[in-house]
Amino acid sequence: MNFGEYVKLYIPKITDAIKNIYNKKLNEVENSFLKDYYSELKDYFLAGGKRIRPLLCIATYNAFIEGGDDKIVFPSVGVEFLHNASLIHDDIIDKDDFRRGKPAFHYRFRQYHAKYDLKKMQAGDFGTNIGIIGGDSAFFFGLEAFLFNEFEQELNLNAIQYYEQAFKEISNGVLIEVDMVNQKDLKIQDYIEMISLKTGALLEKSILIGANYAMVDEKYKSLLSTYGVNLGIIFQIIDDLLGTFGDEKITGKPTDGDIREGKKSCLLITALNKLSEEDKKQLIQLIENPNISENDVNEVKILFQKADAANICRDLAKFYYNEAKKSLEQLKEVINDSEFEFFDNLLNFVIERKF
Amino acid sequence: MNFGEYVKLYIPKITDAIKNIYNKKLNEVENSFLKDYYSELKDYFLAGGKRIRPLLCIATYNAFIEGGDDKIVFPSVGVEFLHNASLIHDDIIDKDDFRRGKPAFHYRFRQYHAKYDLKKMQAGDFGTNIGIIGGDSAFFFGLEAFLFNEFEQELNLNAIQYYEQAFKEISNGVLIEVDMVNQKDLKIQDYIEMISLKTGALLEKSILIGANYAMVDEKYKSLLSTYGVNLGIIFQIIDDLLGTFGDEKITGKPTDGDIREGKKSCLLITALNKLSEEDKKQLIQLIENPNISENDVNEVKILFQKADAANICRDLAKFYYNEAKKSLEQLKEVINDSEFEFFDNLLNFVIERKF
Repeated sequence: MNFGEYVKLYIPKITDAIKNIYNKKLNEVENSFLKDYYSELKDYFLAGGKRIRPLLCIATYNAFIEGGDDKIVFPSVGVEFLHNASLIHDDIIDKDDFRRGKPAFHYRFRQYHAKYDLKKMQAGDFGTNIGIIGGDSAFFFGLEAFLFNEFEQELNLNAIQYYEQAFKEISNGVLIEVDMVNQKDLKIQDYIEMISLKTGALLEKSILIGANYAMVDEKYKSLLSTYGVNLGIIFQIIDDLLGTFGDEKITGKPTDGDIREGKKSCLLITALNKLSEEDKKQLIQLIENPNISENDVNEVKILFQKADAANICRDLAKFYYNEAKKSLEQLKEVINDSEFEFFDNLLNFVIERKF
Repeated sequence: MNFGEYVKLYIPKITDAIKNIYNKKLNEVENSFLKDYYSELKDYFLAGGKRIRPLLCIATYNAFIEGGDDKIVFPSVGVEFLHNASLIHDDIIDKDDFRRGKPAFHYRFRQYHAKYDLKKMQAGDFGTNIGIIGGDSAFFFGLEAFLFNEFEQELNLNAIQYYEQAFKEISNGVLIEVDMVNQKDLKIQDYIEMISLKTGALLEKSILIGANYAMVDEKYKSLLSTYGVNLGIIFQIIDDLLGTFGDEKITGKPTDGDIREGKKSCLLITALNKLSEEDKKQLIQLIENPNISENDVNEVKILFQKADAANICRDLAKFYYNEAKKSLEQLKEVINDSEFEFFDNLLNFVIERKF
């Protein structure tokens, strides 16, 4: 099956599994505010997202099980809960009021605040507070995917261990990124480590959870890990490229955002390492200015070009692509053709994407 | 063993188990900011707290196992992680910068911010952001207590199910409390439901997790539940009483805090239900005033006295005490004497406490 066929077949099943978890919560509560709260969470989860993580989990399981088996669908949504829970908290941290073109979870409750006659709490605080709890809820609900399914207890405990490890790695990645603003001499390897944790770890764990349920032999796990982590690395490098040199009409994102927020992107770190001392000094000055002008943003782009940063980053993505491809080729003999096609399509999509 | 002896014997063991979980994290990371982050979390966990929840888990286990067994200590700390994780997020939500006389977790990182040259992030935001992630980390690390211990997998999965349920009930309690500010005609039963969830649920689950590991017969679980939930209810009612009519020199807390923040305390809800329409109207006006004066606070206290609120609340606590006591007496035949004494002491302590 190619990637598109996989999406078409499994997204409705994944959506149903997510709905089931929330409908259970909704049935349990009577209080009207709790009903609104769980409805908003459910709605937020159903509002969008490509479901790449559950798809990876399902495809890995099916890759090793002849004919596949839909009982993997329910546990596969655990990683989607972890992902969305992180997004809910990230949006508070980054003060992003919109996600996928729709209101962020905390922003929904900033608006909800109007229903209250709250003299002692501002709308902004109210949204943030419910948002913090909302992310927490989603982290916990993800556990249900591993608690209530048809697999053996040992496999479920392994999956929960991966779930915990995935969170730890994601948070380590986020914290290293926070700390990066304080680092003057970043190497590209620091960046790769950071995105491996922040984005690669959960893609890898989605795959390993699928492999766990399919009881895949240990010897294939490191190949699967390489594929998963590298998929995340490639995704982030391309994200950085599109964030500055993408086509706004296609990406839907302005190409000055990363530069304005001074993001330690692949482009910036590459440029800082390649430019002359003088150019580097100028670049730092431009980036650190809190009132960066449109002209300054263009100056930064010119310095990126001078360092040939876009090409260097693209080559870097290509390097991780080749590594992932090599791992996938080694798995070819032992996995089903249908899922080989899925993994191969996804890898190509991630490096070629324009949005 | 009386409560004091229990504390003396088990607190050092509980502390060691918490340290072990954090030392493992600290050994895994090299990045200096991550080392600081995990050190602060560890330090926050070790800075205080009465460890009531792990003690309840341990005592319940020992109550049913002849001679007890220290292998319960490690899984018992899971509930302490859940408790502290909630406190970290609560302190952000309530904007409390101190906890147990020491800096709240987010406040530690507000101070840490001075180490950075962060032009694009304020100290307050930095503290909040690291605080959100800190609470998340603690929620996840609690899982390790159930993943890496000497008990059977089935018992560990049950414990994780209790862990998830405890969070869901706590958060439902917190959300119902948030919604209460919008409710005009609160009944005391609404308040009891709220504190049963917010405080009772985790005490109950601490006990049920201990019972789970001791493989206690189902028929005793509802007695154990009653004891645990009621312990939480009594604790909160007394907390509300001390928050307004306590001795500041003993409690260490000002007796105007609850009134100033307009907390829907047991006293306030009782008074609103008992007072005449006229007095009720005055009380609402006083409470809703964002610039409440010292004189207004005293007016509120006079209205509480007029409604005989303190005595009514004390009687309410006594009612739940008697229920818990009855359950405990029914358990007396099947549990060890040593732990009966612990449970009995704790129940008396919670209702008689002055701080």
